Amino acid sequence: MMGSALCVPLADAGHDVRLVGTHLDGAIVESLRESGIHPGLGLELPDRVRPFFHRELDAAMDGAEVIGIGVSSPGVRWAGEQIAPHARPDRPIVMITKGLAIEAGALSVLPEVLRKALPATVREKTHPAAVGGPCIAGELARRVPTCVVVAGTDEPALDRLASVMATDYYHVRTSPEVVAVEVCAALKNAYAMGVAFAWGMHERRGNAVGGVAMHNHEAAVFAQAVVEMRRVVSALGANPDHAAGLAGAGDLYVTCNAGRTGRFGRLLGLGLSRDEAIRRMEGATLEALDILRIMREAMPLLEQRGLSSLHDLPLLQHLAAVALDGAPVQVPFEKFA
Amino acid sequence: MMGSALCVPLADAGHDVRLVGTHLDGAIVESLRESGIHPGLGLELPDRVRPFFHRELDAAMDGAEVIGIGVSSPGVRWAGEQIAPHARPDRPIVMITKGLAIEAGALSVLPEVLRKALPATVREKTHPAAVGGPCIAGELARRVPTCVVVAGTDEPALDRLASVMATDYYHVRTSPEVVAVEVCAALKNAYAMGVAFAWGMHERRGNAVGGVAMHNHEAAVFAQAVVEMRRVVSALGANPDHAAGLAGAGDLYVTCNAGRTGRFGRLLGLGLSRDEAIRRMEGATLEALDILRIMREAMPLLEQRGLSSLHDLPLLQHLAAVALDGAPVQVPFEKFA
Repeated sequence: MMGSALCVPLADAGHDVRLVGTHLDGAIVESLRESGIHPGLGLELPDRVRPFFHRELDAAMDGAEVIGIGVSSPGVRWAGEQIAPHARPDRPIVMITKGLAIEAGALSVLPEVLRKALPATVREKTHPAAVGGPCIAGELARRVPTCVVVAGTDEPALDRLASVMATDYYHVRTSPEVVAVEVCAALKNAYAMGVAFAWGMHERRGNAVGGVAMHNHEAAVFAQAVVEMRRVVSALGANPDHAAGLAGAGDLYVTCNAGRTGRFGRLLGLGLSRDEAIRRMEGATLEALDILRIMREAMPLLEQRGLSSLHDLPLLQHLAAVALDGAPVQVPFEKFA
Repeated sequence: MMGSALCVPLADAGHDVRLVGTHLDGAIVESLRESGIHPGLGLELPDRVRPFFHRELDAAMDGAEVIGIGVSSPGVRWAGEQIAPHARPDRPIVMITKGLAIEAGALSVLPEVLRKALPATVREKTHPAAVGGPCIAGELARRVPTCVVVAGTDEPALDRLASVMATDYYHVRTSPEVVAVEVCAALKNAYAMGVAFAWGMHERRGNAVGGVAMHNHEAAVFAQAVVEMRRVVSALGANPDHAAGLAGAGDLYVTCNAGRTGRFGRLLGLGLSRDEAIRRMEGATLEALDILRIMREAMPLLEQRGLSSLHDLPLLQHLAAVALDGAPVQVPFEKFA
């Protein structure tokens, strides 16, 4: 979805865009070939976007100047292997996949995971960039004004990517702080689930959505989420200001207010068991679960860096207890600060 | 509204509460006396809350241990004069009024404005505290879990206030950073108006609220708002972290998602002229306008402190142009950072 949506500003910026599906996207590519319509986005992609099946990857890559990657987070290693034969130091890579991974016992951001899947000869000279910030695919594809931050350590590549991607509605700024941006981009999924608890709790009390709701509850969770994101980013030695910017507070805002993560949090707030809530999501990707699992695994590492899960991340601990262990929703406001 | 709502946790905490209306609140006090119902909140206040008319202030103050003030921001000086005869150093004062003022050419927080209205003998020993954080009155009055921060420079008074106010749903933390908390509490009104622009713009495009909306636009404004609040607080020599916490991001979230400020921003986003939008608000208090006027007046002072309105506060500048000068809504995303 997001990969296809990103084709819209790229096409509007005057580029020829080759959109390659994974082996799971055959039906989408077929629809695009037949009618130009992307069934997930529910709209016609611009003419400059040419759809390719996975088996046609080599043809799609021929002459490509820039590579964009929009697979799901567990697919990043796989995607790295797929593009390995086509990776070149002068061909910048930008990822819109958001997430975190544990690699060799350390918390790792996805551009690093991707980089490690590239051939040794290319690996040392290629530093994939990553996009953070609030961006709903369906809105970007409809040219709703959107601000993002592209983070990477290769400054010339970063500047090139930003100038390739920007349009008058897709506002791209750059940052050298990949870890800060990526950690916020990943964590916001877990926290957005927690903000949405209040919707379900409100309905459970017999009140329809809207009216006198539980916005105070939502907002208290929202604020604590930003505070905790700052702490995690700081503990990783990165710049915590991103938690209060586009990649943190901005993306958290949009993730609460739209999409599956909010719906999942609402189901938990309604009092459904974790398993029932997952069942009702009908197979939708729940990034929140992945991130909570990874953060739980990473907790000993973060504690070595001075972070106390008990005192510094009480909200994250509760979210993990609810979404991974099936604990009931009861936000520990008294531990917030 | 907020003063009456705060009576609910105070009563639940076991205190006798005396709720005194201003001279504009006669009808509310009458309703409370006759039926116990607060017409604005649409519910019955607890028995321990005794309503008083403004003319009965002396009787209401007799034996009071703590004074709470919940007038509108332009009424703070007046409120100070009213309570002046009753102010005593051992009687902590807490304000829920949010706002800023220009006094003697300097930006001033409201607890300072109130303090200056107290008798000289009391003034030096009394430091009113202020409540920040996301709190919708109608929700607090219905005991929705709410987190606030009480800020003040008199630590023993602060601790006493926090222990007096807290209940199991009204979570009160303390902070010595009055300026940071109050500046965020005030600015969030202006910024919330800007977040809501997107709702109106979305409707104007012919789309009903909901569905594929303009959350990307909202969230980009939201993130920039937090960034700019940090900058203003920093320029005032206060701790910018509050902008990313309860008093900043948290209160901004709740103010966007509920209440009159959001409705006003939506009208502007719809393309109505400033005057027409104000007319449609039917006399509702529009704190955003007050804050934008004060910030415009304060800008030369902030520029002396190294803040550039052009580079550091492009969103605030635009909000002032729209809401004060009648400029059309066109958020300057390209200037954001």
